[in-house]
Amino acid sequence: MNKNSRVEIITIGNELLIGRIANTNAQWLAAKLTRLGAHVDRITTLRDNLEEISGGIRESLRRRPAWIITSGGLGPTFDDLTLQGVSRELGIGLELNRDALKMIRKVYRRLVREGKLPRLELTEARLKMATLPRKSRPLENRVGTAPGVLISQGGTKIACLPGVPQEMEHIFESQLTPILRRQLSKVEKSEAEGLISGLVESALAPFISDLMKEYPGLYVKSHPRGFEGGVSKILIHMTLTSPRKFEGQKIMRRIVSEVTRLAAAEGGKFELAKRTR
Amino acid sequence: MNKNSRVEIITIGNELLIGRIANTNAQWLAAKLTRLGAHVDRITTLRDNLEEISGGIRESLRRRPAWIITSGGLGPTFDDLTLQGVSRELGIGLELNRDALKMIRKVYRRLVREGKLPRLELTEARLKMATLPRKSRPLENRVGTAPGVLISQGGTKIACLPGVPQEMEHIFESQLTPILRRQLSKVEKSEAEGLISGLVESALAPFISDLMKEYPGLYVKSHPRGFEGGVSKILIHMTLTSPRKFEGQKIMRRIVSEVTRLAAAEGGKFELAKRTR
Repeated sequence: MNKNSRVEIITIGNELLIGRIANTNAQWLAAKLTRLGAHVDRITTLRDNLEEISGGIRESLRRRPAWIITSGGLGPTFDDLTLQGVSRELGIGLELNRDALKMIRKVYRRLVREGKLPRLELTEARLKMATLPRKSRPLENRVGTAPGVLISQGGTKIACLPGVPQEMEHIFESQLTPILRRQLSKVEKSEAEGLISGLVESALAPFISDLMKEYPGLYVKSHPRGFEGGVSKILIHMTLTSPRKFEGQKIMRRIVSEVTRLAAAEGGKFELAKRTR
Repeated sequence: MNKNSRVEIITIGNELLIGRIANTNAQWLAAKLTRLGAHVDRITTLRDNLEEISGGIRESLRRRPAWIITSGGLGPTFDDLTLQGVSRELGIGLELNRDALKMIRKVYRRLVREGKLPRLELTEARLKMATLPRKSRPLENRVGTAPGVLISQGGTKIACLPGVPQEMEHIFESQLTPILRRQLSKVEKSEAEGLISGLVESALAPFISDLMKEYPGLYVKSHPRGFEGGVSKILIHMTLTSPRKFEGQKIMRRIVSEVTRLAAAEGGKFELAKRTR
């Protein structure tokens, strides 16, 4: 695994910890990052609490990922504490960031122009969204108000994104994706998925194990789907990570034939559902 | 906050870290635990990797929660590593557990009887599911195969549940809920939710802050819902934690009137959507 490809996701928000909403942000980020060739090592969900946030960032930095991507806690309310947590942990003070202030002023000017706000007033709560750790770079939010923030610390880049899904997605795609793509361009992933019938998971386990020994870079995950008409069904998902131009697709086709042969030899059947990339 | 009510959730599975599936287990557990009166401090998602699992358990134990509830990684395949990770971290060896073995034998006997399996054969992969850390208690899985596991370590109880949602839910409800209920019976939660129109979040922030200072145990979270016909809409969700018999519902009604009054004073409007418990 490429060391530069290790990423941790940190989602911040009490609403996730009371189960009020599903953590769709984490799933969205994990899928996007994986497709870009990153290896998401861990997802952590933290409370809107200063100690919790700075503690979570500390633990994550100790594991030395190339990136930490956070979502949530950038808004104007008292419990939006992500930047305070990052600032405390890095020992980098917060200050009003000129560029971020310009971005926020632009948003509120537009709201006034559209008649959604009576007048432009940069209250304390609004200035808070432009108060960033020193030397960090604001990432413009064209969908909402609070800008994202990019900070470098040792070998780790920390990107803080808002918690509102459309805002997070917009900033990730428009501003982080190009940077990530440059960093991750050396890796290729091939995937395949299919259904094995007539074998239970415990009978399949040794074959999967052998297959992964045979093909370095291959990862096979089995998902039992219960019994249909008395026949056991298991969905298997295979991912092959290989250096670019290593013909990953060709190797994946060979793996698929091998799985088909192994399943048949045991009295079962493998049906390929899809092969991506 | 009651120290006995602090819980951490650890979900284990690469499929979560590649964004292939949503972490519905974490959300389900968080909602159930919160409703039982627990305080979910953190949710961590870990790879199917021995170092990662034992490291994640170690960090969690250091924070001294009353409970750690894990889901995933109990099955028969090579990458089901939860119990190995727990065993390594606690320094408690794994051994074939008699009760767990009985449970598993029962499951496979039924499969043979139903004609889903040709014969009862306790292969290595199947015995793995009955190999638990010493002195732990298996939790019967009547929906699938792998039993859950309950282990005590210092002041922390560790419950390991399967990753298949129906199996996890079944073991949680039938076997953990009664234990948790006894431990958490001293706390009561009242909740209310409603929509504020005509105020933007940054204008609302100082009022929420004041309200929380006034009512200890109250937590208010605002969720901006954008603009409808030029009018800002914000969903607010209020949770009041109070000792049982403290008349939390009555206090919540008072808080709701206060929010209604505050919103009106600022030219906005508050509409109560629901009040639970």
